[in-house]
Amino acid sequence: MNKSSIKHDKFIIVGDIVSPISLKELQCFDGYIQVEYGKITKIGTRETFTENKNAGHYKDIAVGHLSQGQFLLPGFVDCHTHAPQFPNLGLGLDRPLLEWLDKYTFPLENKYADRQFAANVYEKVVKRLLNNGTTTACYFGSLHLEGTLELVKSVVTHKQRALVGKVSMNVENNAGYFNKTENELRDVETFVKNVYAYKSHISENKEEIEFVLKTNPVCSNYTEVYDRCEILNKRCIMAHAVYLSECEMSIFARKGVSVAHCPASNTRLKSGLCPVRTLLDHNVCVGLGTDVSGGDSASILDAMRRAMDVSEHLLMTGGSGPALDWKEALYLATVGGAKALGLQDKIGAFGVGKSFDALVVDVGDPRGPIDNYTDSLLGTEALVDLAQKFVYCGDDRNIVQVYVNGEQVKHTLPPYASVATFPFFLCE
Amino acid sequence: MNKSSIKHDKFIIVGDIVSPISLKELQCFDGYIQVEYGKITKIGTRETFTENKNAGHYKDIAVGHLSQGQFLLPGFVDCHTHAPQFPNLGLGLDRPLLEWLDKYTFPLENKYADRQFAANVYEKVVKRLLNNGTTTACYFGSLHLEGTLELVKSVVTHKQRALVGKVSMNVENNAGYFNKTENELRDVETFVKNVYAYKSHISENKEEIEFVLKTNPVCSNYTEVYDRCEILNKRCIMAHAVYLSECEMSIFARKGVSVAHCPASNTRLKSGLCPVRTLLDHNVCVGLGTDVSGGDSASILDAMRRAMDVSEHLLMTGGSGPALDWKEALYLATVGGAKALGLQDKIGAFGVGKSFDALVVDVGDPRGPIDNYTDSLLGTEALVDLAQKFVYCGDDRNIVQVYVNGEQVKHTLPPYASVATFPFFLCE
Repeated sequence: MNKSSIKHDKFIIVGDIVSPISLKELQCFDGYIQVEYGKITKIGTRETFTENKNAGHYKDIAVGHLSQGQFLLPGFVDCHTHAPQFPNLGLGLDRPLLEWLDKYTFPLENKYADRQFAANVYEKVVKRLLNNGTTTACYFGSLHLEGTLELVKSVVTHKQRALVGKVSMNVENNAGYFNKTENELRDVETFVKNVYAYKSHISENKEEIEFVLKTNPVCSNYTEVYDRCEILNKRCIMAHAVYLSECEMSIFARKGVSVAHCPASNTRLKSGLCPVRTLLDHNVCVGLGTDVSGGDSASILDAMRRAMDVSEHLLMTGGSGPALDWKEALYLATVGGAKALGLQDKIGAFGVGKSFDALVVDVGDPRGPIDNYTDSLLGTEALVDLAQKFVYCGDDRNIVQVYVNGEQVKHTLPPYASVATFPFFLCE
Repeated sequence: MNKSSIKHDKFIIVGDIVSPISLKELQCFDGYIQVEYGKITKIGTRETFTENKNAGHYKDIAVGHLSQGQFLLPGFVDCHTHAPQFPNLGLGLDRPLLEWLDKYTFPLENKYADRQFAANVYEKVVKRLLNNGTTTACYFGSLHLEGTLELVKSVVTHKQRALVGKVSMNVENNAGYFNKTENELRDVETFVKNVYAYKSHISENKEEIEFVLKTNPVCSNYTEVYDRCEILNKRCIMAHAVYLSECEMSIFARKGVSVAHCPASNTRLKSGLCPVRTLLDHNVCVGLGTDVSGGDSASILDAMRRAMDVSEHLLMTGGSGPALDWKEALYLATVGGAKALGLQDKIGAFGVGKSFDALVVDVGDPRGPIDNYTDSLLGTEALVDLAQKFVYCGDDRNIVQVYVNGEQVKHTLPPYASVATFPFFLCE
């Protein structure tokens, strides 16, 4: 059994398919997706598949059938995470943002001057995100040119779709984790050939806003600081955006600036409750971010649940509603993230012409946290209910296969089947 | 290799030990715990163990050594969960409490009139909670006498410590899920021989409070409804307690009534944010509950994290602080729960004379969600940091062994060791 990456140039997957269409509409149907050279070339119902098959159309193409309890879902998009901070996952989260940076984060990130250390960690980070179903990630590296290029290398090796940014910081701090401006300009010039998206933080924490406005006295708000640098455009993804004014939201909407909503880190670092519903109502594009290690989970499933929690808690305490529901959370994790990263033509949902970035979810796998009480209930539940269970209760164990651009990058053998029903597992 | 329950009458475990002492104090040390016939008979440092061993004291006793990255932790206490609702885990959570009961919960609970259905589900529920480290659970069954006795049977079979209550309801509802008062009194009389604790819900949801006060016009608050029935005492555990007045909190404190804090269901069913800090400040005893399936996770680890989230969010929106930190959450999950159930002399923390209800946590297991980047970082982190990582990021995969009353009820073989370092695995 070859457990490394398996590639078929052309294949079809037949079974249950779940794909978010809009914030409110989730498409759930029994059908097939045909993939050729990484791109989706056909999507249809099971009836159409059967007709085509009977007409002999599929003689030269690999066909895989999903099992009961399995369904296809677009891959998750993580709009904001810090690859070098993964070794600190779950550490130091009882401190507010600026204190946490000084004591935990800057000292760790300093270690990435050691290229081998960087390579060791980044190898695991990328594999971990793929295992959790994150087919596209927008990564922050560290201040180090060579270290961050190791992250790019790991992404390429493990075939993840990613935007990788080198950190630029010229503000001095206690940990000595900053760069002189002239060195930074040189490093960024070298690095920038490898990346093509602007990424930054905005308005995460009240003390941070105060500090930013103090050091930029000509600006009347945080957004203006970036706007004067002319980086506010469609390729700009701002993380957090907890305390934007109405006026700043309007600028975001007008200039096409997106928000990476990071509910875990906003709570753990005591930053605040991001009013996602208000952002959406202002036509600001929102995706989800795990923001490790301010966030304490590498999983976008966790980000979905906490986005719902935060939205519900804001509503309970006088914020505007309705609270985000699970279909909306799933939309933000897929289509919303794709839009935020300017990749909506390529990924986020299933559509002809898009890349096949997909997960095979298995809610019937007894190793996972969803127990469908196979002998009594599985098979009686509607597909939309299985999707709902996965959003609320699933974890990486329920993500049994992951595809990026048509290439399978995660394989899990079913524990309960003597013969794998999905032929991809049978490849040598 | 015998993978069923393994029992040694006398044994010693040597290694890192983590035990909550108070809300603020967590004991972390390298030492040993000696267990005889289910009870802890000695606790000491590694030095004492070595001296005793060299003096030949341990010739007749099994000794197990924990590996690097492993530590002992008291078992978790789930103060409030509904065993019959597990098949609905993650379903229907976009509705408020009373609507959710009518559409999802009562129809499912009605099925437990079928004793075999009950037996099938309860078998899985108890195993699942043990797998998640819940050594003691306070279960609600259903309205059915025989069905609920199946839950008792499953608990006994799988050797979990548990309080099991039969549900009593004489208020009519659309699902027809209620009992006539005279039948109920007869059923309860039969059932009550098997249980020894009062359990009930209180003040979960504003509409619910309104309904209760309308049907009990002589009472001025929700607490008085129960007080007039004379059930408010040290053996009474109230779930939720989201909207208690100062006056009700004082009654709770004076009468020794405990609260099972269920943050997941309070959010998912739109009930509200329970002010745990305020309850603690009023000397009300608080434990944690998963409250499946209003809650969407069977894991007390999840309840700890969400208790921290809710506490932080309350503080952000004007509630009283400081927010619960991870040590306090761990205390509520162990000692707090033990006190809430009136079992503080038996379980909750490690102490001579107490039962050995314990977890072996392994944060170094690469199958789990905590990656300690073994080659670079594991071994350099303080025990308290490993405990912190487990509370924030761990799941059932990091709980490699579970003991109830000295008996091992969960076994996971280490995937990375050619020879298991813990001799219990070598038993036939």
